Amino acid sequence: MLPRGRPRALGAAALLLLLLLGFLLFGGDLECARRARGGAGFFPCALAPRIPQDGRPRGAAALDRDPPTDPGGHNRSDCVLPRPLPPRCELLHVAIVCAGHHTSRDVVTLVKSLLFYRKNPLHLHLVADAVARNILETLFHTWMLPAVRVSFYDANELKPQVSWIPNKHYSGLYGLMKLVLPGALPPDLARVIVLDTDVTFASDIAELWALFAHFSDEQVIGLVENQSDWYLGNLWRNHKPWPALGRGFNTGVILLWLDRLRLAGWEQMWKLTATQELLTLPATSLADQDIFNAVIKGHPALVQSLPCVWNVQLSDHTLAERCYLEAADIKAIHWNSPKKLRVKNKHAEFFRNLYLTFLEYDGNLLRRELFGCPSPRPPEAEQLQQTLAQLNEEDACFEFRQQQLTVHRVHITFLPHEPPPPRPHDVTLVAQLSMDRLQMLEALCRHWPGPMSLALYLTDAEAQQFLRFVEASEVLSARQNVAYHVVYREGPLYPINQIRNVALAQALTPYVFLSDIDFLPAYSLYDYLRASIEQLELGSRRKAALVVPAFETLHYQFSFPTSKAELLALLDAGSVYTFRYHEWPRGHAPTDYARWREAQAPYRVQWAVDYEPYVVVPRDCPRYDPRFVGFGWNKVAHIMELDAQEYEFLVLPEAFTIHLPHTPSLDISRFRSSTTYRDCLQALKDEFLQDLSRHYGAAALKYLTALQQPEAP
Amino acid sequence: MLPRGRPRALGAAALLLLLLLGFLLFGGDLECARRARGGAGFFPCALAPRIPQDGRPRGAAALDRDPPTDPGGHNRSDCVLPRPLPPRCELLHVAIVCAGHHTSRDVVTLVKSLLFYRKNPLHLHLVADAVARNILETLFHTWMLPAVRVSFYDANELKPQVSWIPNKHYSGLYGLMKLVLPGALPPDLARVIVLDTDVTFASDIAELWALFAHFSDEQVIGLVENQSDWYLGNLWRNHKPWPALGRGFNTGVILLWLDRLRLAGWEQMWKLTATQELLTLPATSLADQDIFNAVIKGHPALVQSLPCVWNVQLSDHTLAERCYLEAADIKAIHWNSPKKLRVKNKHAEFFRNLYLTFLEYDGNLLRRELFGCPSPRPPEAEQLQQTLAQLNEEDACFEFRQQQLTVHRVHITFLPHEPPPPRPHDVTLVAQLSMDRLQMLEALCRHWPGPMSLALYLTDAEAQQFLRFVEASEVLSARQNVAYHVVYREGPLYPINQIRNVALAQALTPYVFLSDIDFLPAYSLYDYLRASIEQLELGSRRKAALVVPAFETLHYQFSFPTSKAELLALLDAGSVYTFRYHEWPRGHAPTDYARWREAQAPYRVQWAVDYEPYVVVPRDCPRYDPRFVGFGWNKVAHIMELDAQEYEFLVLPEAFTIHLPHTPSLDISRFRSSTTYRDCLQALKDEFLQDLSRHYGAAALKYLTALQQPEAP
Repeated sequence: MLPRGRPRALGAAALLLLLLLGFLLFGGDLECARRARGGAGFFPCALAPRIPQDGRPRGAAALDRDPPTDPGGHNRSDCVLPRPLPPRCELLHVAIVCAGHHTSRDVVTLVKSLLFYRKNPLHLHLVADAVARNILETLFHTWMLPAVRVSFYDANELKPQVSWIPNKHYSGLYGLMKLVLPGALPPDLARVIVLDTDVTFASDIAELWALFAHFSDEQVIGLVENQSDWYLGNLWRNHKPWPALGRGFNTGVILLWLDRLRLAGWEQMWKLTATQELLTLPATSLADQDIFNAVIKGHPALVQSLPCVWNVQLSDHTLAERCYLEAADIKAIHWNSPKKLRVKNKHAEFFRNLYLTFLEYDGNLLRRELFGCPSPRPPEAEQLQQTLAQLNEEDACFEFRQQQLTVHRVHITFLPHEPPPPRPHDVTLVAQLSMDRLQMLEALCRHWPGPMSLALYLTDAEAQQFLRFVEASEVLSARQNVAYHVVYREGPLYPINQIRNVALAQALTPYVFLSDIDFLPAYSLYDYLRASIEQLELGSRRKAALVVPAFETLHYQFSFPTSKAELLALLDAGSVYTFRYHEWPRGHAPTDYARWREAQAPYRVQWAVDYEPYVVVPRDCPRYDPRFVGFGWNKVAHIMELDAQEYEFLVLPEAFTIHLPHTPSLDISRFRSSTTYRDCLQALKDEFLQDLSRHYGAAALKYLTALQQPEAP
Repeated sequence: MLPRGRPRALGAAALLLLLLLGFLLFGGDLECARRARGGAGFFPCALAPRIPQDGRPRGAAALDRDPPTDPGGHNRSDCVLPRPLPPRCELLHVAIVCAGHHTSRDVVTLVKSLLFYRKNPLHLHLVADAVARNILETLFHTWMLPAVRVSFYDANELKPQVSWIPNKHYSGLYGLMKLVLPGALPPDLARVIVLDTDVTFASDIAELWALFAHFSDEQVIGLVENQSDWYLGNLWRNHKPWPALGRGFNTGVILLWLDRLRLAGWEQMWKLTATQELLTLPATSLADQDIFNAVIKGHPALVQSLPCVWNVQLSDHTLAERCYLEAADIKAIHWNSPKKLRVKNKHAEFFRNLYLTFLEYDGNLLRRELFGCPSPRPPEAEQLQQTLAQLNEEDACFEFRQQQLTVHRVHITFLPHEPPPPRPHDVTLVAQLSMDRLQMLEALCRHWPGPMSLALYLTDAEAQQFLRFVEASEVLSARQNVAYHVVYREGPLYPINQIRNVALAQALTPYVFLSDIDFLPAYSLYDYLRASIEQLELGSRRKAALVVPAFETLHYQFSFPTSKAELLALLDAGSVYTFRYHEWPRGHAPTDYARWREAQAPYRVQWAVDYEPYVVVPRDCPRYDPRFVGFGWNKVAHIMELDAQEYEFLVLPEAFTIHLPHTPSLDISRFRSSTTYRDCLQALKDEFLQDLSRHYGAAALKYLTALQQPEAP
């Protein structure tokens, strides 16, 4: 505690003086509030607690003189608590309960705000249902955040512990799960901060963590007072809230001293209280919060009241203004109205702006390491870093190499999605797109009633625009069998095959139709494909890629053919062409359109150089080769690999899909003209072919031979 | 100083005790450094200064015992200085020298980082050249930030005071201007923080301001030590830096105590020093920084050494790591390498991420008011707020009304631009676009060699993508006569006419060609228009709108006609149509294409309902009506107003422009299908016509009559 090398007596004298001084200068509470309002003064209202050198707060016995909770009224928020320095490099633990698609998105915004301000390593403890776990595991795995550990706990397993409690709150059972955290979290976890998913941080969470140092030996729960009159009762006739101390406490932000809670028999304590109250009250109105408050009412010594700025509650009839107008520094905002961001509040704009800051914040920027603390990356990230470091910056294709190695953050099922029921011949349409193709989605939904797995390459801000776009569209919001997966943008080249692979990996049916976003399939294609798969007995017998012949129109105003006959008529009239007939006929020539005209049954065709048809294949088909970034050869290479794996190409006589015109994408036009781009693409091709030879041996020789024909563009 | 109502004697005793205690506990410097590294301890190495209740620091005589500057070596950055509380609600003054287009963009990023963390009202003092002033005045005027005042000072006027100093630094004369701030800033301005434009804040500037409280009575300049060995000399043969104390100080972040500097005869002092040094040294290498250091070398008592974290210098051979690896909390980053963000540094990623955060940050979010401080908005903003508050949220057209009133932040001449030389018949092409039309720019540049004024509707992040796009394009970066103006996105509807008006207002030639971004003009159009204007004597005689007939092609691959004859051939072949021939012929019917085929001379046509030709008009033509947001009627209304003002419509016989196909924009497709949209557009039309009648009286009757024909879509 005292500087080493000084006589102990001096230290003792100093301590005495310190205490005396504190008493003389800061004896009066009122006095202190007045000074805080004055705005100046470095020494706040009470003497500061000391944190020993190991960074862990002591039992904090010396802190009993902290401003006491005012049991009857609101917090003394105008009396600024002394700020202990946040514990440097200490690992901070945060627990969040999370279920469903929407909440998973909310958690990301909360976590971004946490990460933006944090300077400490974090361990996130996520109590999640299957949907949220699936999303968040993928997200954190691909986010590769240094000095962040994530653990998952199965919310389903915890359900029986709380499902007996009748509850009317919109958070459902999941809110109640905060009660069982002391049992659910690892037994050696001593302290944790528990957060609701609708909280946004505006400062470093370490400052909140440091408030554990204010707990007396008896205190086990840190909470901010509830900023509404709910618990005072009598808001309307027969309004009977659960018992609480004064206005009670809000449980959107909780400091839980877990090991003390376990010792104190927390589980028994809250269950007993809840059971007793439920004898006279029909249900909880505010989920866990009612029960926490009832327990605290019976055991007021358990609670440490936290400064109001750590949970500024924006509920409908909030009293939060009393808090935030006094405090220059708002630390955490809690959107605890069911209306969330649409809540009426005269300062709503201010709070919304803070929220939007993190909603739209580029999550890639949060991959920054911590300074002054060891900040280990996940092992994959470490390896990646080393590979990246070995790249030669002088290499003309450096940008390509770097882009290939980039691990993109992925948020799967960004919107609610119901997995298709298992059916043996079902097909998922797989495609990828970026913002400039959102207009295609409605038409695509009209043409393809079956399941789709679509990967979108977006920035964080664009993901929000996309969300609004879907919500504004009746067609899109009505569909439950379309899964949207966001792949976050990073780097200058379009990682087309990586994006396709995300969509492919998330397809849940036995078959996939590998399409592109600018194509509209025949209205009947979904049904026809399923029938064909069944008929051809693909599942058991054959390893086949069903070819869907591709056409194109150059007109925006276009009456889509409802049958093969109509299509052929348009083709004859010159309103429709076979795909890329003018620019690049060899891409689809092997499909043999002349034969298709007449065909009544599926027919087999042979692979040829540059063939890139749209095909239906089993879900476990080879992935797209992620080395092809930017444009060119990305689909050609995939088809070549299907051929190398001896897939038969079977053209379906009634299947067709039509490409609609569009402006060339920015990502294309940036590179089409560059010679470096063409050279690098050639290098990628060569490397791909070498790998193919290594993999398939002599069988791959035919590709090398075939390619020694005149250069393809 | 002391709580009121306590006997004065007690206060005196307390002060004595405080001093004694400080001496006993924190006598040793080494000791203090060790403790700080330990990470804990709320009381830092020295006792905290007290700031009196008026929030202004005293002469700080009691602070002489602050850790002294270590004259030989680097700052004692590991010894954390006590943090005085930032002065609540005090107005903080910041001075920045700024010149040119690039630096104006840098200033915006710096200011965004300042605003993000600030909790105090700010007064920005901008010493600017004409270019920067033009840009930044418009920007701040449209930004409408609460509690931010901006004053401009003419850099040109200050030039003579520093232009006699030979200088080799890339900042040129502008860097040197920091020396003359005590004279240039208002005489009643006592203290100011001076910032280089390449600084990024990572914390609240009030904490930096509070360090004025550490100044002794003698100290007048606060600086961070220079984090390189430059001033130690001998980096190479004949490397002779200017004199400095040890490593010297960096002047990217300066605390200037202006009134003391003025009293101390600063001007004479630095001029004398500079003159003396220039007897033996040929020029300054680091501009003002060399002179500041030379003065300080002669008068070490003037300087207060600031904690290194307030100016973490990322120069090429930086020693900054010594600072930031120790400090958990980096406060401000200084990109003081000429390579800026591309500087090699093993932690570059971390710093770049912070920079990118603010580069791409949505500046609209910084319009949030300050809590707990009065935060007056500019008067226009106040009025706007009131008008917005009067809107009825239940009104079906609420979104339209709100969008119409939105004041968009505008950054004019976002990229370097040379105004065209004054020529009496010159024409500027005026158009607006958003990201999805960037691909058009190169082609447009090839078709139109003349000046262009293009407004881009972008988010802050998109503006950076746009910048990279232009830099990557040889065609675009070679053009100096194309001015790009960024209008920042806000709100759900596309404010097409507001964006057009920005482009129109920034056109600098006597005539403007009001085009749309999807059109490519005939190669000869620019020359032909100028000749026509001269020939028709538009300047003196006639009030005319020259009509450029519009065509369209439906093909991407399109060989652009090089003459009217070629165009007519394509028209006859059905490769080209008159514009919107299929969907909306009446928009251009009055142009009378049949007559145009044969015409040899300009001919006059009459206005008719829904006419919306592309025209060349004098720059002072009526503005577009900003009420038309979203899509529909925005151009029709403008042409109607030209007619109401009795512009003749003269069709030019050799002029033409061709529309290229494109995917419908998101902004259009979102609303085309909505009935509310159509209803609101009708309401807008009605209001426009009422205003027209009010304005032009009986003459406007014809529009009402004409519109009583069958409904236009």
